Amino acid sequence: MAKQKIFSGVIAPVLTPFGEDGGPDAERFVEHAEWLMDEGCTALAPFGTTSEGNSLGLDERMELLEELVDADIEPENLMPGTGSCALADAIVLTRHAVDLGCGGVLMLPPFYYKAPNEEGLFRFFADVIEGVGDDRLKIYLYHIPPVAQVGFSLSLIGRLVKEFPDTVVGLKDSSGDWSNTAAILDAYPQLEVFPGSEVFLLDGLKRGGAGCISATANVCAGPIRKVFDQWQSPEAEQLQAGITALRKAIQAYPMIPALKALIAHYREDAGWAKVRPPFVELPAAEAEKAIKTLADAHGFKLDFADAA
Amino acid sequence: MAKQKIFSGVIAPVLTPFGEDGGPDAERFVEHAEWLMDEGCTALAPFGTTSEGNSLGLDERMELLEELVDADIEPENLMPGTGSCALADAIVLTRHAVDLGCGGVLMLPPFYYKAPNEEGLFRFFADVIEGVGDDRLKIYLYHIPPVAQVGFSLSLIGRLVKEFPDTVVGLKDSSGDWSNTAAILDAYPQLEVFPGSEVFLLDGLKRGGAGCISATANVCAGPIRKVFDQWQSPEAEQLQAGITALRKAIQAYPMIPALKALIAHYREDAGWAKVRPPFVELPAAEAEKAIKTLADAHGFKLDFADAA
Repeated sequence: MAKQKIFSGVIAPVLTPFGEDGGPDAERFVEHAEWLMDEGCTALAPFGTTSEGNSLGLDERMELLEELVDADIEPENLMPGTGSCALADAIVLTRHAVDLGCGGVLMLPPFYYKAPNEEGLFRFFADVIEGVGDDRLKIYLYHIPPVAQVGFSLSLIGRLVKEFPDTVVGLKDSSGDWSNTAAILDAYPQLEVFPGSEVFLLDGLKRGGAGCISATANVCAGPIRKVFDQWQSPEAEQLQAGITALRKAIQAYPMIPALKALIAHYREDAGWAKVRPPFVELPAAEAEKAIKTLADAHGFKLDFADAA
Repeated sequence: MAKQKIFSGVIAPVLTPFGEDGGPDAERFVEHAEWLMDEGCTALAPFGTTSEGNSLGLDERMELLEELVDADIEPENLMPGTGSCALADAIVLTRHAVDLGCGGVLMLPPFYYKAPNEEGLFRFFADVIEGVGDDRLKIYLYHIPPVAQVGFSLSLIGRLVKEFPDTVVGLKDSSGDWSNTAAILDAYPQLEVFPGSEVFLLDGLKRGGAGCISATANVCAGPIRKVFDQWQSPEAEQLQAGITALRKAIQAYPMIPALKALIAHYREDAGWAKVRPPFVELPAAEAEKAIKTLADAHGFKLDFADAA
């Protein structure tokens, strides 16, 4: 019998709204998180790349996580990003997440120093695991070489899985390279592997994948969930084609500002569009174009009528 | 009359020693900092790249800085690294340094998200300056594209200098590209510009540079200082050739582990060699080779006999 998965399905790296003062807006954040779960997300990954997670301070990340746990979101459905270049900060964030009962954490490798050797990366994770010192800790490795530059080789993944089989339980592959995802799925069937885009959802599921963790799940959770639920049905390929086309249309724009612009528009809440430096908001004309293009070509709209 | 410089000369990005428990070793750290000032450093830049600064947690950085200020080192001679991907953390670290009376701070751009646009980077620094809200703040921009990937274009530097002439006062150029350093010196003569290697010290000084901030100043401060002091003398070229050759011999090894191995050897203190992941220590055979090669070819040795 296959091992019961801890996480599976459609996971959104929750966007982080900011208030007038530039600080995270906890109220809009919780509201968005709850709406995502209503829309079909099976779990949430706050403080990912799409969340501007690495633009948030330590205290900001911990406070926002507490807000989610205090709201109607089960902590076992939370997989917060707790990576940091700094070992000490990664331990602080990870321990905090474990203490709150989070089902897992999504961990970047230390990404400041480039081309670190495998032994050094292995030691980083070994030190985090020892530093947190809690059997409840479940780590999902976050492989995103286009942004972090530092990533996880197949052999490093293998070493971590072998040494910490009860802790290193999954991986998000945002390489954008299906052959890499396929190689990981084939080499480590015990891992819960999530492609970083719904474009690879169906291919991933057919090969033993666990679902996807995707930026665009912030605005397309429903249709993505449908593919997850019906992946063995005759309609699966056609449903997949629909979410692939929509994803490609959205990613023609700068992802984070575009997602926030879409939500701002359909929530009729201009403040939602705010991003934190080094990002800048989508110019108004580009936002209008995105809204119109997506609506015309894909029937895209967001409905917040029933939202809390 | 030329404006009085705030910083000039030879500045070492102070190595960070670690104790048995993996935490920073404040005692060894302060001892090393004081030795560096005795050796000829004009100022210190703790928490730089060579300091493994981005592997240190927020609290670790602040505690170590307080240790330096509590020791015999004048805060006006300190230019700590206070950059962070996270705006909130950059503000916390920078305000802390200003409150301690540090003469300046060396700030990386936010380096997680790649290829940010100029406006976003400008806003980051504007927000830090506004967030700290203290006229004593003096920022030295830290341009190190080989590691941070994100850097400062000439036009971004110009915009920051124009908007914040009393705050953005200098730059460290670790691009390794002399033509870039020369272009910055020519375009912004009011900036205190420090090449990131003593290889460019004399060329920099001839063009209006302020000195250098260099990893190898951790072990070669004396001879580098000699070039700075005698740059207009007939011996300058020959002295420069000596420090250039030594720098090139040292950088044939992985820089941070090699510097720590050299200090561990000459201090007869094996614990000094410890690095934090993602780095690993220099293997013993390679350390021995480095020590012997540098001694044979360059007469390199470190003398701690008179050290406190």
